[in-house]
Amino acid sequence: MEKGRVEAFSDGVFAVAITLLVLTIYVPKPDPRHSLVHQLLQHWPDFAAWLISFMVVGIIWVNHHGFFDKLRRVDRVMLFLNLLLLLFVVFIPYPTEIVSNYLKVGGWDAKVAVALYSAVMFGMSIAFSEMYLWAGRHDELLDEAVDAAEHRARFWQFAAGLPIYLVLIGVSFLSPGLAIAGHFAVAVFYVFDQTVARRGA
Amino acid sequence: MEKGRVEAFSDGVFAVAITLLVLTIYVPKPDPRHSLVHQLLQHWPDFAAWLISFMVVGIIWVNHHGFFDKLRRVDRVMLFLNLLLLLFVVFIPYPTEIVSNYLKVGGWDAKVAVALYSAVMFGMSIAFSEMYLWAGRHDELLDEAVDAAEHRARFWQFAAGLPIYLVLIGVSFLSPGLAIAGHFAVAVFYVFDQTVARRGA
Amino acid sequence: MEKGRVEAFSDGVFAVAITLLVLTIYVPKPDPRHSLVHQLLQHWPDFAAWLISFMVVGIIWVNHHGFFDKLRRVDRVMLFLNLLLLLFVVFIPYPTEIVSNYLKVGGWDAKVAVALYSAVMFGMSIAFSEMYLWAGRHDELLDEAVDAAEHRARFWQFAAGLPIYLVLIGVSFLSPGLAIAGHFAVAVFYVFDQTVARRGA
Amino acid sequence: MEKGRVEAFSDGVFAVAITLLVLTIYVPKPDPRHSLVHQLLQHWPDFAAWLISFMVVGIIWVNHHGFFDKLRRVDRVMLFLNLLLLLFVVFIPYPTEIVSNYLKVGGWDAKVAVALYSAVMFGMSIAFSEMYLWAGRHDELLDEAVDAAEHRARFWQFAAGLPIYLVLIGVSFLSPGLAIAGHFAVAVFYVFDQTVARRGA
Repeated sequence: MEKGRVEAFSDGVFAVAITLLVLTIYVPKPDPRHSLVHQLLQHWPDFAAWLISFMVVGIIWVNHHGFFDKLRRVDRVMLFLNLLLLLFVVFIPYPTEIVSNYLKVGGWDAKVAVALYSAVMFGMSIAFSEMYLWAGRHDELLDEAVDAAEHRARFWQFAAGLPIYLVLIGVSFLSPGLAIAGHFAVAVFYVFDQTVARRGA
Repeated sequence: MEKGRVEAFSDGVFAVAITLLVLTIYVPKPDPRHSLVHQLLQHWPDFAAWLISFMVVGIIWVNHHGFFDKLRRVDRVMLFLNLLLLLFVVFIPYPTEIVSNYLKVGGWDAKVAVALYSAVMFGMSIAFSEMYLWAGRHDELLDEAVDAAEHRARFWQFAAGLPIYLVLIGVSFLSPGLAIAGHFAVAVFYVFDQTVARRGA
Repeated sequence: MEKGRVEAFSDGVFAVAITLLVLTIYVPKPDPRHSLVHQLLQHWPDFAAWLISFMVVGIIWVNHHGFFDKLRRVDRVMLFLNLLLLLFVVFIPYPTEIVSNYLKVGGWDAKVAVALYSAVMFGMSIAFSEMYLWAGRHDELLDEAVDAAEHRARFWQFAAGLPIYLVLIGVSFLSPGLAIAGHFAVAVFYVFDQTVARRGA
Repeated sequence: MEKGRVEAFSDGVFAVAITLLVLTIYVPKPDPRHSLVHQLLQHWPDFAAWLISFMVVGIIWVNHHGFFDKLRRVDRVMLFLNLLLLLFVVFIPYPTEIVSNYLKVGGWDAKVAVALYSAVMFGMSIAFSEMYLWAGRHDELLDEAVDAAEHRARFWQFAAGLPIYLVLIGVSFLSPGLAIAGHFAVAVFYVFDQTVARRGA
C-alpha cells in the first residue's frame, strides 16, 4: 500500500485537530460585574491547556513526519495502528477542555482531570510506540536507507514520552498544577532539544 | 477526469468528519452535586457512540483508499456517487450525538435514535455499493491490473455491511443497546479480519 | 505561480465547509413533552437547508475542479478572486443555519432569511464568474488545449446560476418555501444534467 | 527535510482556520421582540471582524505560499518557527470572537478586545518575520534561484506589517473602531497592491 495517502489523511487529521483546539478556550461575554481582563485572567488554565495541547499535537506531527520518512510502504496492521494513534489525536480537545474547566476549581476533580489528560497522552505514546516496534519487526516496511537493527536499538530514544507520561499520571494525583507544568516542560524540552541543542552539536 | 483530486478532497472530508466527532461528547462542567468521575460515567454512551463512529469512518476511509487504488479514472457519475457517500460521512456526527443523548434515557426514543444511526450506516453502505457496482459495469474506469469479472464476483464480499446494517435497523427496535453492541462488533471484526486474520493466512 | 497549491488549499476549504454544515442541524435533547421523532419532524427545515447547502458546495467543488483543469497557471488576480469565491463558500453555514432557524417561523423574517441565503449564492456565482472571465481575458492563464474564444463563448453556459439566483432573491420575498424548493431544484437539475443527461447523449 | 509535507500540513491548518471563523458570527434566533434584520444589524461587528480575519488569514496563506516557493528545503528550526506561525493562525478565531462580543459594548473592554486582536496579528508577524530572517541567515535553505543578499535586503518590505500592527495596538486604546478600520485598510491595501498596482506597473 502506498504511504502517500496515509500521510495526507493523517496530515489532514492533525491539521483539523490542532485548529479545533481553540474551541476549548472559554470566550468571555460582556458582563457588567467582570471586566474582559478579569475574565481572561480567570480563565488562564484554558490558555495553558490549549498551548500545551497545541505543542503536543505539533510535536506528534513532526515525529509522524520523521517516522514516515523512514518507511518504504505501509501494511494493513500499520494502517490500523496509525488509526489508533489518530484516535488519541482527535480525542485531545476533550481532555484539554476538561482540564480548562476543572483545573481552576481544584480538589479531587482537578486531579482526575489532569490524570485523564496525562492518560490520553500516555495512550497516544503507546500507539506511536507500537507503530515504531511494528516497523522494526518488519524490515520490508522500512526504507532501504534505514538500518533495521539501529531502528530497533533507538526505541527508547523514540519512546521517551512513555515512562514520562506514566509518571505524570501519578503526579496528577499529588499536584495537578505540577503535572500540567510537567507536560509543558516536556514539550518545551523537546522543541529545545530538536532545535537549539542540535545546532550546538 | 483525474482521480487524484477526488481522493484528496475525499480524504479532507474524512479527516474533518473523523475529527469533528469529538464535539459530540458531552464536556462536564464543575458541579458541586456531581463529581467529574460521576459525570464521565453517566455519559458513557457518548464515548461508546464516538468510538464506534470513529472506527466506522476510519474503516470507510481504508475501504475508499482500497477502492480508488483499483480505479484508473473517475467519470461524472462516479464523482456524484462519491459525493453521495460523503453526504453520509459528513452526516455521521449528527446521529452519533443523538445516540449519545438518547441511549441513556431508554424507551422508544432510544430505539428511534439507534435505528436512525443504523439507517445512516445502511445509507452509507448503499452509496459505497453503488460506486462499486458502477465501476464493475464500466470497465474503462478500472485499472488495467484489475479483472472486471473478478471485481463483479466479489461484490457481496465488499458489500457485507449492507445486510448487516439492515438487520441492525430492526434490532434497534428490539434492543437499542444490543444494536449498538452490534455496530461495535462489526467494526472490531472488520479490523481483526483485515489484520490478524490476514497475517495468519 | 503553481496552481497545485491553490487547488490543494481550495479543496481543504471545500472539505471543511461541507463537513461543518452538519453543525447547523439542531440536535434534539431528551424532552418529556416532545418525542425524538416529533422534534426531528419539527426541524425539517434544518435537514432541507443542510442538504441543499451540501449539494451546492459539492457542485461548486466539481466546477472548481473542472475550471482549474482548464488553467495552465494562476496569477495574483486569480489568486484573490479564488479567495473571494472561498469567502462565500466558508460563509455558507451561516445563512444555512439562519434558514434552519427562520423558515419554520414564517412571516417577514423567513423571507429575509431565504433572501439572504439566495444572495450568498448569487455572490458566490459572481465571484466564480469573475474567475471565468478573467481567465478568458488572459489567454496565458489557459491551458494550451483550451480554445480561448470557445472559453469566452461558453460564459453563459458556465454562469447559468447567475440569473437564476438573482430571480430566487426576488422569489424569496413572495414565497420563501418556493425559493428554497427552487434552490433544491437547481442543484438536482445540475446533478441530473451532468450525469444522466450526458450519458444519454 | 522535504518542504512538501510542511506545506500540505500548513495549507490544511490555514483551510480549517479560515473556515472555522464563520462560527464566531452570532446566529440570530427567532425572537418576537427583534426582527432578523434588526439582529443582523445589531451584530455588525461580528461581520466586520469575520471579514477582516478572513482577509488576514487569506493574505498570510498567499505570503506563506510565496515564501515557501523561495525555499529549497526546511530545517528543524524552520519547522518549529512554522509551527509558531500556525499557533497564531489557529488562535485567530478567539480574538475575532472577542472583538465581535465587545466592540458593540464600547468602553475599556472594547479597547482591550481590539488591542488583543492587534497583539495577535503582531505576534503572527513576528513569527513570520523570524522565518524570513532564519532563511536569510541560512543560504542552504534558499532555492538556488534566490539571491540571499537580495532576500535579506527586502526584509522590511516583507515585514511591513510589523510596525503597523504595533501602532494598531496603541490605536486600540485611543479608538477601537479606528483600529479595526486600520486592520481592514491594511488588508484591502495589501490586496490592491498585489493586484491592481502590480498590473499597472
